[in-house]
Amino acid sequence: MAKVGVWLIGAQGSLASTVVLGAGVSARRLAGGGGLVTELPELAPLPLVGLGDLAFGGWDIAPTGLVARARSLTSADAAVPESLVTRLEADLKAVEARVRPGFADGAGPAVRRAARAFVPRGESLQAAIQRLGDDLDRFRVEERLDTVIVVNVASTEPPLELTRDHERLDRFRRVIQHDRRTLVTPSMVYAYAALERGFPYVNFTPSIGMAVPALQELALKHHAPFYGSDGKTGETLMKTVLAPMFRYRNLEVLSWEGFNILGGGDGRVLADPRHKRSKLRSKAGVLGAALGYAPHTGVAIEYVPSLGNWKTAWDFIHFRGFLGTKMSVHFIWQGCDSILAAPLVLDLVRLTEFAQRKGEAGPMTHLACFFKDPLGVTVQSFTDQFRMLTDYVERHTNNERHAKNGPAIRRKQPRAR
Amino acid sequence: MAKVGVWLIGAQGSLASTVVLGAGVSARRLAGGGGLVTELPELAPLPLVGLGDLAFGGWDIAPTGLVARARSLTSADAAVPESLVTRLEADLKAVEARVRPGFADGAGPAVRRAARAFVPRGESLQAAIQRLGDDLDRFRVEERLDTVIVVNVASTEPPLELTRDHERLDRFRRVIQHDRRTLVTPSMVYAYAALERGFPYVNFTPSIGMAVPALQELALKHHAPFYGSDGKTGETLMKTVLAPMFRYRNLEVLSWEGFNILGGGDGRVLADPRHKRSKLRSKAGVLGAALGYAPHTGVAIEYVPSLGNWKTAWDFIHFRGFLGTKMSVHFIWQGCDSILAAPLVLDLVRLTEFAQRKGEAGPMTHLACFFKDPLGVTVQSFTDQFRMLTDYVERHTNNERHAKNGPAIRRKQPRAR
Amino acid sequence: MAKVGVWLIGAQGSLASTVVLGAGVSARRLAGGGGLVTELPELAPLPLVGLGDLAFGGWDIAPTGLVARARSLTSADAAVPESLVTRLEADLKAVEARVRPGFADGAGPAVRRAARAFVPRGESLQAAIQRLGDDLDRFRVEERLDTVIVVNVASTEPPLELTRDHERLDRFRRVIQHDRRTLVTPSMVYAYAALERGFPYVNFTPSIGMAVPALQELALKHHAPFYGSDGKTGETLMKTVLAPMFRYRNLEVLSWEGFNILGGGDGRVLADPRHKRSKLRSKAGVLGAALGYAPHTGVAIEYVPSLGNWKTAWDFIHFRGFLGTKMSVHFIWQGCDSILAAPLVLDLVRLTEFAQRKGEAGPMTHLACFFKDPLGVTVQSFTDQFRMLTDYVERHTNNERHAKNGPAIRRKQPRAR
Amino acid sequence: MAKVGVWLIGAQGSLASTVVLGAGVSARRLAGGGGLVTELPELAPLPLVGLGDLAFGGWDIAPTGLVARARSLTSADAAVPESLVTRLEADLKAVEARVRPGFADGAGPAVRRAARAFVPRGESLQAAIQRLGDDLDRFRVEERLDTVIVVNVASTEPPLELTRDHERLDRFRRVIQHDRRTLVTPSMVYAYAALERGFPYVNFTPSIGMAVPALQELALKHHAPFYGSDGKTGETLMKTVLAPMFRYRNLEVLSWEGFNILGGGDGRVLADPRHKRSKLRSKAGVLGAALGYAPHTGVAIEYVPSLGNWKTAWDFIHFRGFLGTKMSVHFIWQGCDSILAAPLVLDLVRLTEFAQRKGEAGPMTHLACFFKDPLGVTVQSFTDQFRMLTDYVERHTNNERHAKNGPAIRRKQPRAR
Repeated sequence: MAKVGVWLIGAQGSLASTVVLGAGVSARRLAGGGGLVTELPELAPLPLVGLGDLAFGGWDIAPTGLVARARSLTSADAAVPESLVTRLEADLKAVEARVRPGFADGAGPAVRRAARAFVPRGESLQAAIQRLGDDLDRFRVEERLDTVIVVNVASTEPPLELTRDHERLDRFRRVIQHDRRTLVTPSMVYAYAALERGFPYVNFTPSIGMAVPALQELALKHHAPFYGSDGKTGETLMKTVLAPMFRYRNLEVLSWEGFNILGGGDGRVLADPRHKRSKLRSKAGVLGAALGYAPHTGVAIEYVPSLGNWKTAWDFIHFRGFLGTKMSVHFIWQGCDSILAAPLVLDLVRLTEFAQRKGEAGPMTHLACFFKDPLGVTVQSFTDQFRMLTDYVERHTNNERHAKNGPAIRRKQPRAR
Repeated sequence: MAKVGVWLIGAQGSLASTVVLGAGVSARRLAGGGGLVTELPELAPLPLVGLGDLAFGGWDIAPTGLVARARSLTSADAAVPESLVTRLEADLKAVEARVRPGFADGAGPAVRRAARAFVPRGESLQAAIQRLGDDLDRFRVEERLDTVIVVNVASTEPPLELTRDHERLDRFRRVIQHDRRTLVTPSMVYAYAALERGFPYVNFTPSIGMAVPALQELALKHHAPFYGSDGKTGETLMKTVLAPMFRYRNLEVLSWEGFNILGGGDGRVLADPRHKRSKLRSKAGVLGAALGYAPHTGVAIEYVPSLGNWKTAWDFIHFRGFLGTKMSVHFIWQGCDSILAAPLVLDLVRLTEFAQRKGEAGPMTHLACFFKDPLGVTVQSFTDQFRMLTDYVERHTNNERHAKNGPAIRRKQPRAR
Repeated sequence: MAKVGVWLIGAQGSLASTVVLGAGVSARRLAGGGGLVTELPELAPLPLVGLGDLAFGGWDIAPTGLVARARSLTSADAAVPESLVTRLEADLKAVEARVRPGFADGAGPAVRRAARAFVPRGESLQAAIQRLGDDLDRFRVEERLDTVIVVNVASTEPPLELTRDHERLDRFRRVIQHDRRTLVTPSMVYAYAALERGFPYVNFTPSIGMAVPALQELALKHHAPFYGSDGKTGETLMKTVLAPMFRYRNLEVLSWEGFNILGGGDGRVLADPRHKRSKLRSKAGVLGAALGYAPHTGVAIEYVPSLGNWKTAWDFIHFRGFLGTKMSVHFIWQGCDSILAAPLVLDLVRLTEFAQRKGEAGPMTHLACFFKDPLGVTVQSFTDQFRMLTDYVERHTNNERHAKNGPAIRRKQPRAR
Repeated sequence: MAKVGVWLIGAQGSLASTVVLGAGVSARRLAGGGGLVTELPELAPLPLVGLGDLAFGGWDIAPTGLVARARSLTSADAAVPESLVTRLEADLKAVEARVRPGFADGAGPAVRRAARAFVPRGESLQAAIQRLGDDLDRFRVEERLDTVIVVNVASTEPPLELTRDHERLDRFRRVIQHDRRTLVTPSMVYAYAALERGFPYVNFTPSIGMAVPALQELALKHHAPFYGSDGKTGETLMKTVLAPMFRYRNLEVLSWEGFNILGGGDGRVLADPRHKRSKLRSKAGVLGAALGYAPHTGVAIEYVPSLGNWKTAWDFIHFRGFLGTKMSVHFIWQGCDSILAAPLVLDLVRLTEFAQRKGEAGPMTHLACFFKDPLGVTVQSFTDQFRMLTDYVERHTNNERHAKNGPAIRRKQPRAR
């Protein structure tokens, strides 16, 4: 009997597939809970929703994919044993069948090509938002859920320059009403549909989504927590871990060059230069903040089909030490992208549901350690970001303790709707 | 007009040579101050001694070496421009001439072989301590110094099992008086000589030195600050930076294998398995503390003459993520050992002198971030260790502010002697 | 209807298991024939035995293992799909059941511990040779085989210094008769048993085996082809490929340091320093021959259980170019040992059977490219070694052509027995 | 008393500077001759010109640079000792003063910007060829040289599509006469000027130069030897060494991804995408030829100023072995570009002069091992290419021996002019 809904944008993709598979495997204790931050002792004080209490659904631009992706994780990627997928097959199929058509206009060339058959065509922005919002409500009612957490795990959209029309909710509403499609990307449409119905929204991609001020205003209006952008899983995680070392040792980083190769659906989309641009932007930003100055830096991403879901990153860091001597560090990161990202998605679902349950709304800055480009947070040292999370846990632990004598943090309402 | 003495154990070695060269170069602003932690804005509130106000001397087992080592840093190692060494040559020669014979018995086979001609033979432990202490006093008087900071930058000694006789000062004194040489290594003799005269002692090597409880008792008796052991400059620094990432992401480290190759004098000494053992011990310890469990781990060190002062380390980290998937990170560290270590030695001198000036004594745990095996500190996350240093700065900044209304931390005496 | 027998020494190990699995999979065309040198167009002119015409058996010191090893290749190692092993399971079980007790005395401590229950104890050398020879004959008769190729794929033995008693067959026979066990290792016993009955012997390990002159004399006496030692699969293969580059560009290699980590049974045995010594010897020898001088070199092998059958090697090559400038290359090799070695074992079986069929005897120097330490060959450039193989093919192609007009190479007898 | 002239196109650049410095240093035996292929014992039988018998001059688009580049090789790059440059300073200055204005139109945007002041403007192609040819003749006469070898070591030009007009000399002549500049790049102008006067031309860059059939016709007409293109110094050298290994082991290369970073003048020019394209073309071509099929491959080049003349390349090779198992090799190449290339330029000068002296003309295919894209040679295995060179040596050695009894290879004339 599930209590919390998880609605995945990009539900037929590798990451969504691994999220669904992983929740089932972990709930049944068929494999260890490695990679789940919410299973750390530091987070044990928080009464989070169990992984077995999650129900999954989502949007995509294709009617199938989820089961095939899980299978390719075990065959082509050799990342998980075949038997795990076999045992979860019924669950995976059920979720795949529950996937509803998403919204593709403005998702970039790589996505548009794929969306033809499944997604309604010629739909106005307003109609789409209505349709998508209805999907969420129906999911909540049919599955008897307390709430639905919407998480964007779709492919990266091309970047879009924000205008004055994105700044205030009233103006952005008019953009929707007048169907001015060049100002709107799917991630905005999805976020709008979710937040308008009071459902929390988490942006795990570099797509613009929650960075739109008007949407943040909408979230606050409906008292929904939200956060993003772009899950921090590999190379950029390493950057936010290593950069403080150079900073605290007063070693000047001269150049930091990164070269990423990956296959899979994500790799294919990023091979398109327009999609790639968004990704590079969120990856490149962290160094300046972490170091206090901007070294020469480059981040390349190339599509290498044979790698499948595995990403290999080579980073070269050139630095100057005492007496001007130049030295260097290289690192090579070899990780399976979906496997690294999926537990973080589940962590974010659990922590977002908790925040909503506690009546919190607005940007969840305590979740900065999960993101490459954490909204409203300038701290880029990973250790310091993790401390923001443990501080949050501590505040809540103290509150629970104090709660016996009276409430400590203001809550507006126990549930968004 | 120098005010603070720096007495280096291993004064004819590469690191000592780079310390002396670097202090001169930095004081004359011939090169940037990169690598000096004490030049970070975070430490600016502390009124530390200027690098131009340091006078250098030291002990060694050979009468020469310091100038040649500086030259080889510019020629064989290609680490610093020839012109820097040329301009500092007079200074380097003056310090080289000031080096006094050290103590070699118990320093291990690699050192003993080299010590024959310069170091007195058949000297009792007590006579040696007297002689070495006199060296320090003479240095202080002749150079009109406020104090002398003794720093051990000599080659690594073989390990020695500590006994009950090392535990209390009265017992250890009897060991000295009875000349029981199998219980005593040179690093103990040096520390004893320094602390007995009230001079602070910093152990930058993995040699046992300040880890002897009896010597810590001696330090407290003479109200001298001290710290160690083993400067953290490269591979181990990376470990204390990266291990928290795995810890905070709940990624289980299965194996962490390190392979270090280096040339130079340090490499030659470490090629001897007895010397190597001490080094490996201090390098291997950090992971368990940082991760909370002990993964499979190995640390190899090999002597590769062609590398000179450059050390290359390859580390392979095998870890298990979500659903049991195994992934890996490799890093390759390419640094010039003396260049990495020398600024830290200068940092430690400045911070130790400051502590002594403020009347502080005992282990300087706020310096944990400088060491592989920080005395009395179990925190092994580098970022957290750095916070211990900035917390110290903050305490002193607040004290200075409060000092106008009255003293805040207890001081016994403004100076050790 | 198999025609050629393959008798594997170490038949319950990972490599043997992969050989049997791989022959079955390739014969049934369930996967591509990648890694098989004998499938190259260059070798197409030779009428080699089909992989489906091979029958397998062997010796080991344990009664089981082969099936479990194949399973662990698919689960723990994630190297091959589970379905391949499932489809071949009957074959694997049949071969496992056919494995006969080997000989363990002198195989080194790591092997002796494991051998207790299965292998006869207190057996004389002469009795063992008789028993082992009978195994081969029985295999040939029962399976109606034309011949049996014996291949040593067992764990590495500790090295043994050869004496005058190993030099001539008559002397070595006396060693056997007098049961002087300190002069004999299992690889010699196995080779003796095989060659005495006229079966070819290939030593895929660094164990001493065929390097004993007396055994080579025995082979010639019974007109059997033989070869070894130590299959060249990864790091050393790279060495014999890269070293000629430095040689032909007149770039002086200053140091070549290798660091190998691996798990699995092979890793466990090599963790014992006595076993490791043999391996290091065969790995280190190639550089001097390929370069024309001996650079500083080191080869480390460490046992890292989490890696299973996967070996990771890091090699650092420091070289001096024009004007004395030092430069470097690093390489990281990540391969699955059994997967790399198994096709070479099948190649060697096919080429050895062909040589025997053609009436050739003695060392098969045209197979040098398969070995780290090719008997009687000083050429260590891999490309040049490969040319020795294609030259052999060409000689046989020409012979076939000429054969219509008369014989070209001398043959003694069409078959060994 | 020099006998052979070396005329460098790009004479103020890093490579030219290192060539001049290196010839002087080697001739005076101030450093070892490492990196010179012509100093290998295999080439000893050829009576090549001594490095002390070379006189240098050249063209460039800037009046200075050569001395500054040599200094930066010792300071910024820390590649050679300062003292070497100091001792050769007079020579370097003399060559720098001898540099004549080159030709810049069509050299690409990065070059055009720099060429303004030094190079004549508004000059017709025909006038330029006349002026450049006169430079060569004047050099030969003034320095009393036997011949002049022209070597292109300038920055890479953007690619240009060849047309029917480039195919035959008579047509190409009309292009020159009619000043049709869009069909002509500087490397063609330089080659034309040199070959028309009978001087050999070697193209060490990927610029189109000698690949123009009309220019090859011109060379044959004037009986001049020539060759190119693009010196093979680092990453591509490794490719032509490693690819045969995969080929001969029947290991299918799935992907070969290369990532190059470098600074210096060459890096700056290659940062421009139009220039980069030529380079990438010559780098990417080798794999298909060496493997026999075209794997997925990418070659990225990025400009990283802090690296100066040092190039770091990371290559990732993904390959499939037995039973379809995917494995990988990474390599990291860290070399100083000028130091790697300069000795090859000297080798090419010596071997070209020898060929001319022996009356040979046309493409010197025996020099294939020096080039990424060897004219008229499809062999891409480096070892096989080296054999082409030693075969050439052998042919000449035999000829010398036979010469006592009569001539063996046809010579037209002992000298080009």
